[in-house]
Amino acid sequence: MDRNSPIGVFDSGVGGLTVAREIMRQMPEERIIYFGDTARLPYGSKSQDTVLRYSRQIIRFLMTKEVKAIVIACNTASAYVLEAVERELDIPIIGVIRAGARTAVHSTRNGKIGVIGTEGTISSGIYTDVMRQMRPDIEVSVKACPLFVPLVEEGLLHDTVTDEIASRYLSVLKGRFIDTLVLGCTHYPLIRSTLGRIMGDEVTLVNPAYETAVELKELLREKELTCQTRKDGEEEKYQFYVSDLAEKFTAFATSILPNEVKETKKIHVEEY
Amino acid sequence: MDRNSPIGVFDSGVGGLTVAREIMRQMPEERIIYFGDTARLPYGSKSQDTVLRYSRQIIRFLMTKEVKAIVIACNTASAYVLEAVERELDIPIIGVIRAGARTAVHSTRNGKIGVIGTEGTISSGIYTDVMRQMRPDIEVSVKACPLFVPLVEEGLLHDTVTDEIASRYLSVLKGRFIDTLVLGCTHYPLIRSTLGRIMGDEVTLVNPAYETAVELKELLREKELTCQTRKDGEEEKYQFYVSDLAEKFTAFATSILPNEVKETKKIHVEEY
Repeated sequence: MDRNSPIGVFDSGVGGLTVAREIMRQMPEERIIYFGDTARLPYGSKSQDTVLRYSRQIIRFLMTKEVKAIVIACNTASAYVLEAVERELDIPIIGVIRAGARTAVHSTRNGKIGVIGTEGTISSGIYTDVMRQMRPDIEVSVKACPLFVPLVEEGLLHDTVTDEIASRYLSVLKGRFIDTLVLGCTHYPLIRSTLGRIMGDEVTLVNPAYETAVELKELLREKELTCQTRKDGEEEKYQFYVSDLAEKFTAFATSILPNEVKETKKIHVEEY
Repeated sequence: MDRNSPIGVFDSGVGGLTVAREIMRQMPEERIIYFGDTARLPYGSKSQDTVLRYSRQIIRFLMTKEVKAIVIACNTASAYVLEAVERELDIPIIGVIRAGARTAVHSTRNGKIGVIGTEGTISSGIYTDVMRQMRPDIEVSVKACPLFVPLVEEGLLHDTVTDEIASRYLSVLKGRFIDTLVLGCTHYPLIRSTLGRIMGDEVTLVNPAYETAVELKELLREKELTCQTRKDGEEEKYQFYVSDLAEKFTAFATSILPNEVKETKKIHVEEY
């Protein structure tokens, strides 16, 4: 395994860019191959079976790029896929759930943690399972919030409608007196200020994107896979691939990443 | 061609059931094979290229069921696909757009028509093109309403949030003094009462699902393809196929169709 190979990162669309952004910040020397499955998004409302099939195709594509490690930057795919595919691969693969769960378990003072996410992530029960394995007396309250992704994608980040929907979704969690809330979908950090205002100062918001980059950094160091030679030259350091609408992706990625994204390539991922 | 063969109907998901329901009402003797592409929905935010590829796979699947005609019960797919595929097929194929456009052109009194739909349908400009071909002096105002589908799928059919979002989307159309509004997405008839209240009594709402069934009936008669022998027996009269989440589909279909749906089969449509 070449430690100067890139890291593969994938998501159903643009949400995983919040994870890629954290990797860029925390490990500026690493190269990244990002894939967003924009032709088949969203994953959050689909079955485990389908998300597993799609993820295996994406992983086969990333392997053709000789990645040294893979990050599943999508909560739904992490929930449904990680356990099955880590046995099939001979490179390290991590999801966003374990790191977020660990941080939540360490941060709670009263042992009551809330988790919000897509229908797929929430119905999988994975955050609850993982946190209870770490600390069996944790009390976990969960809530699926299917309108948050479309509201974010419509750009209503600071809007009375988003406030109203968030108040409804979060009211059940407020009633359970949680002191820690896991933002269990990569789109949710983009409405963090709304969520924080509704939950109040006493509730800690956990962003698994940040925690995942921390975990990846440790993992690469442990496996001696940290990049050593900065290879500048003909190849772009960060390469972006999607299954549809490459230009729209480029514009969105440029808006949230530190540097301009020059190009996104469209591929037929179902052929992998 | 066997006139007693079934009619193929497809959509990105459940929305096209509003079209299937109209066919069942208006032509109770006809058999239907319905396909909903639930593994890859929604189509409204995807490119023409991708929607065309997906639709061709679905059409190849429907052809294995020996359908005598195909209805594209999805506005986005009708907008992007119909013209390309009708040349490739030797059976009749219709979409939902022409019938809706014709009814709107006939119903307007002041020549000002509004169209609402997904981003894909609206950005294709197809309703405007088709209506202007029918009557060049028609003034068409359009508005993409990307939050309506998630709001309907979240069950917020009668809700203050849906009212607020609908008021925002429709305000530009009200300002243009339209007297006819085309519901250019198969989900929208389900929030018809909200849309009607906001637009006011003087605005006629056109539901292309209904008009498409009328057009199909005429077409089958013209081509001498109307079903003649009611073949009861081993085969279900209405057969449902999806690419994911068959049970969820069955429950939804049962809730909006006149009869209980006993079974939905899941297939891998990308293999066609």
